[in-house]
Amino acid sequence: MSEMTRTPIGETAKAVGQTVTISGWVQTKRDHGKITFIDLRDRTGVIQCVGYQKMGELTTESVVELTGLVKERPAKMVNEHSPLGTVEFDVQEYTILNAAKELPIQVEGDGLDINEEVRLKYRYLDLRRERMHKILKLRSDYFKSLRDVLYENEFTEVETPMLTKSTKEGSRDFIVPSRLQPGKFYALPQSPQQYKQLLMTAGVERYFQFARCIRDEDLRADRGFEFTQLDLEMSFVKREDVMSMVQSLITKSIKAVGGTLKTEEFPVYDYKDAVAKFGADKFDLRTEQEKADGVLAFAWVINFPFFKKVDTTDAAEVIDGKSGWTFTHNPFSAPIPEHEEMLLKGENVGEILTTQYDLICNGYEAGGGSIRSHRPDLLKATFKVMGYGDAEIQDSVGHMLEAFEVGTPPHGGIAFGLDRFIMMLAGETSLREVIPFPMTSSGKTAVMDAPAAISDEQMKELHLKFDGASKSPHDYILEQLQTAGASYEYIKHIPVRTSEEAEAARKGKLEEGAKALVLHADREFILFVLPGNLRADLDKLKELLGVKKLAMASKDSVLEKTGLEVGSIPPFGSSIGLKTYLDGRLGLNEQIAFNAGRLDRSVLMKYEDYIRIEKPTVLDLAS
Amino acid sequence: MSEMTRTPIGETAKAVGQTVTISGWVQTKRDHGKITFIDLRDRTGVIQCVGYQKMGELTTESVVELTGLVKERPAKMVNEHSPLGTVEFDVQEYTILNAAKELPIQVEGDGLDINEEVRLKYRYLDLRRERMHKILKLRSDYFKSLRDVLYENEFTEVETPMLTKSTKEGSRDFIVPSRLQPGKFYALPQSPQQYKQLLMTAGVERYFQFARCIRDEDLRADRGFEFTQLDLEMSFVKREDVMSMVQSLITKSIKAVGGTLKTEEFPVYDYKDAVAKFGADKFDLRTEQEKADGVLAFAWVINFPFFKKVDTTDAAEVIDGKSGWTFTHNPFSAPIPEHEEMLLKGENVGEILTTQYDLICNGYEAGGGSIRSHRPDLLKATFKVMGYGDAEIQDSVGHMLEAFEVGTPPHGGIAFGLDRFIMMLAGETSLREVIPFPMTSSGKTAVMDAPAAISDEQMKELHLKFDGASKSPHDYILEQLQTAGASYEYIKHIPVRTSEEAEAARKGKLEEGAKALVLHADREFILFVLPGNLRADLDKLKELLGVKKLAMASKDSVLEKTGLEVGSIPPFGSSIGLKTYLDGRLGLNEQIAFNAGRLDRSVLMKYEDYIRIEKPTVLDLAS
Repeated sequence: MSEMTRTPIGETAKAVGQTVTISGWVQTKRDHGKITFIDLRDRTGVIQCVGYQKMGELTTESVVELTGLVKERPAKMVNEHSPLGTVEFDVQEYTILNAAKELPIQVEGDGLDINEEVRLKYRYLDLRRERMHKILKLRSDYFKSLRDVLYENEFTEVETPMLTKSTKEGSRDFIVPSRLQPGKFYALPQSPQQYKQLLMTAGVERYFQFARCIRDEDLRADRGFEFTQLDLEMSFVKREDVMSMVQSLITKSIKAVGGTLKTEEFPVYDYKDAVAKFGADKFDLRTEQEKADGVLAFAWVINFPFFKKVDTTDAAEVIDGKSGWTFTHNPFSAPIPEHEEMLLKGENVGEILTTQYDLICNGYEAGGGSIRSHRPDLLKATFKVMGYGDAEIQDSVGHMLEAFEVGTPPHGGIAFGLDRFIMMLAGETSLREVIPFPMTSSGKTAVMDAPAAISDEQMKELHLKFDGASKSPHDYILEQLQTAGASYEYIKHIPVRTSEEAEAARKGKLEEGAKALVLHADREFILFVLPGNLRADLDKLKELLGVKKLAMASKDSVLEKTGLEVGSIPPFGSSIGLKTYLDGRLGLNEQIAFNAGRLDRSVLMKYEDYIRIEKPTVLDLAS
Repeated sequence: MSEMTRTPIGETAKAVGQTVTISGWVQTKRDHGKITFIDLRDRTGVIQCVGYQKMGELTTESVVELTGLVKERPAKMVNEHSPLGTVEFDVQEYTILNAAKELPIQVEGDGLDINEEVRLKYRYLDLRRERMHKILKLRSDYFKSLRDVLYENEFTEVETPMLTKSTKEGSRDFIVPSRLQPGKFYALPQSPQQYKQLLMTAGVERYFQFARCIRDEDLRADRGFEFTQLDLEMSFVKREDVMSMVQSLITKSIKAVGGTLKTEEFPVYDYKDAVAKFGADKFDLRTEQEKADGVLAFAWVINFPFFKKVDTTDAAEVIDGKSGWTFTHNPFSAPIPEHEEMLLKGENVGEILTTQYDLICNGYEAGGGSIRSHRPDLLKATFKVMGYGDAEIQDSVGHMLEAFEVGTPPHGGIAFGLDRFIMMLAGETSLREVIPFPMTSSGKTAVMDAPAAISDEQMKELHLKFDGASKSPHDYILEQLQTAGASYEYIKHIPVRTSEEAEAARKGKLEEGAKALVLHADREFILFVLPGNLRADLDKLKELLGVKKLAMASKDSVLEKTGLEVGSIPPFGSSIGLKTYLDGRLGLNEQIAFNAGRLDRSVLMKYEDYIRIEKPTVLDLAS
């Protein structure tokens, strides 16, 4: 099992006639009487192994170490479709390093037919497929190529903070409560825009970073909250200097990973001309043949309007654009030199053009940047146009204005969304395919069960209180069911307070009733759900939960904590800020019934839908 | 001003006799009658420039573009101490690209005598010093060297999520409220431990990442909340394989940036022996001469105890170690193979040794790693030893246990704190010197004013309420003053409700009284502080704040929002969750007096101390 003596499978063809040790995953296994055929896979290749043993306990996708002889295959047995089709491996000894139970998802094929939540829950299996392995490798290789060109051009890599201040970047910030300064918050960076400009003030001149950016945007099918951008900035440059550097960076790095470009010189379109010609500022210059061949067609768009009228349906725009005008791309951009006067005077706002340059590739926006305002009067004028008062400008960008008065060189830069780049390079159509551990479209973290409730103690330490969603638990639960597309029966009845009363009112079975108890476990509240015909065994539960103290919460504390009366508590801890634990015996019934946060309303639904939606921690209380 | 025609100063020696354009920062300027001498600096060097113009408006640290002739200096004028001491630059034309006002901090010298808060507020200036520039460059170069060796060894770089689940890593998580799932929270990663192990399940085999890690630890003078670690993991390895790979990585990368190693073979110490020999598991192997020469002396320590008795004063340990035992290094580590049985049986807990290896350098812990448990029974046993119940284990690491049942190879890895590495390489003694934008020791973000209060609307959107610090505003303010080391006078008096009453009770001057008003600005509350003898001009204030509506808050709403009665409101919005705006005229007095959150208690202190501690936004209401 030592790395030193292990032969990578990809190198077995060089070891014909030798006895070696290989290890990897059992990709396929066929039992032919006394002979077992195995395709063994590691990161370097797949080899056919022949065992004259039974190996009954060896399941597909188990990890195994094999010692044996590498042999040439007879000429007529050579598999020309496989890189290692000329050799096979005679198994002498085998050791199972990790046995695989039945897999929750298959790792063959492209996986695109699997439900997204399930694929991402088992992302560690999903990533085993050949396609995903290649994408991971391409991502790493492409990052390396970009870095190589940047180092060649004397760029310095600099990290900027993750815990920082809320900035004006056009999207909502994620915030992070400060424990040491209760009531105050850090913001996660939407981009390193301001820090990279300050690095120009610091004299770094050529900066880059592969920046982790985080924005609380409304989720779309194809977009999560996190993305990685190649962020760069240069001093003493004009628009054309940055565009030329970027063109060279892109062409070199893409060729280094074997990509094909339509042109190495990227055509430049005026925003107006692009809209006139293509009907949009994003367009696809490829022919059908080039699309089929995976060619990348880049172009620049320049001379965008600096400002636009506020979209009154967009909250962020309304906040930024108090005057009715807001920026189209970036408030830190400079106008084109000919329009500086108009900006300073706040005249003909709609006609002012920005130095923004957008990089277009295959119909997508691949990146965007600009020459920045490095004069305090220009930056101030931009915010004035948007209707900011002096104090507000000071409060928002005062530190930038100060920096522009202590020797800040002219500068400009760009940022590329690297996930999109990799997506185009890999010929994929969804960003989630190229992010190692992406979020689900509902904002759930891959593999891990986040976001999740935190303990009362953590909330106390941060001096925060949950004010209860604006929705009542009743409305929240019904919305959850509807969003998840679950069928259910909604029952109106007389107010009931016990499982027996509820059974009578709903005309259902007692054991199908999901009784939900609020318990006091050590120092926090939890929700425990069990069948209506059973009583909670608190001693056993205490042991299973690993807590020291466990008791029923009083009626008053239940009301205070959840806003609900005992009897109306639903089995959805998520609706009242509690973690849900479930007595697994409830699963003996196909459907469950429960009071839906009101004494006079019940819901009857499938048990499995309930599990899927609420995701309780299931406990074995049967034995 | 174009990058294309700009000559880097470092290359001027090759341009003798030519007329070129250079640009950079005015490092020094001396006026000798009609002649002006300038030392001009860019990232590549410093050159002496001679101007036969006055250049009166050109201040030090301004950014300027010069066009002129590069000349050889006469032999006797050559400056042997300067790389460009053989040439000088005859200025023909100059253009000021950005004029520098008087600098808030000096950029000459090492900056170590400047107050830390001030240095970090103006970090963009602080980074201009030669020492800091060299450190930034070293950091970038060293990262490159590490990557080069990792790529050579077929490691794949993979990014893991920033918004993830709270994990058991021994420190407190920073949490991030979810807007779409109110009452639930993401956690920021303390390390990518679990994801990197899952990448081994995925078959990546050799992974690395320069990981941004964030922990809510109690701040020490030398430690912030954020750090960057080189995180790596390998499959099919034993302890010795990882240690050998790491030794090779470290020696190659350090030599690549010109560092000197005491030995290329790192000595390995048993934990017991190290403690017996050095009195600690961190030790410095350098001689005095080696210390003076900046040599790096690495060593390994192995065979640590897996578990230790819980330190009852450490909250995290108490939570993790319910049984009285907790892990010494990492709960995901495997025990040494000989001790697997003991762990599985939970016997002789104190004697079980872990596969942990710590990398020691010059008396610091530079990194640590281990072979991981890849068998579910071993991981479960570890948590059982710490007193976790089945449900809790499932809840904490259920996804890891699942992954260990679908074919996870044996694996192990390591993580290095890169900030510390750079610190040792640069010969610095504080981590803050080598982090581009570090936090202050009080947890404030460099340059930006974070953490900060957020708007009531943001809080509403997240369904969060601030429960008020456990401390009363009165206690909070006094603690702030004491922490900041400010002198003040604490005055007990009869209850007062107006500035005039307070003046009489405190026997002070009316204009020194800081009157604090809670105002309703658009949809949020703010605090406005003005001299006791003046009235608030709400119209003017509205304009300066750039808000549409501005009004005094009612007594009731003040009480509800702040918990304080009108009259007792202190000029510290931070103590009551409000942003503070200040009428600059209060600064006309050297000291200020105010009610300290109680009607019967006042504080008299220096105005400048107040500004330093509360950091209000100062408004100009004088004109």
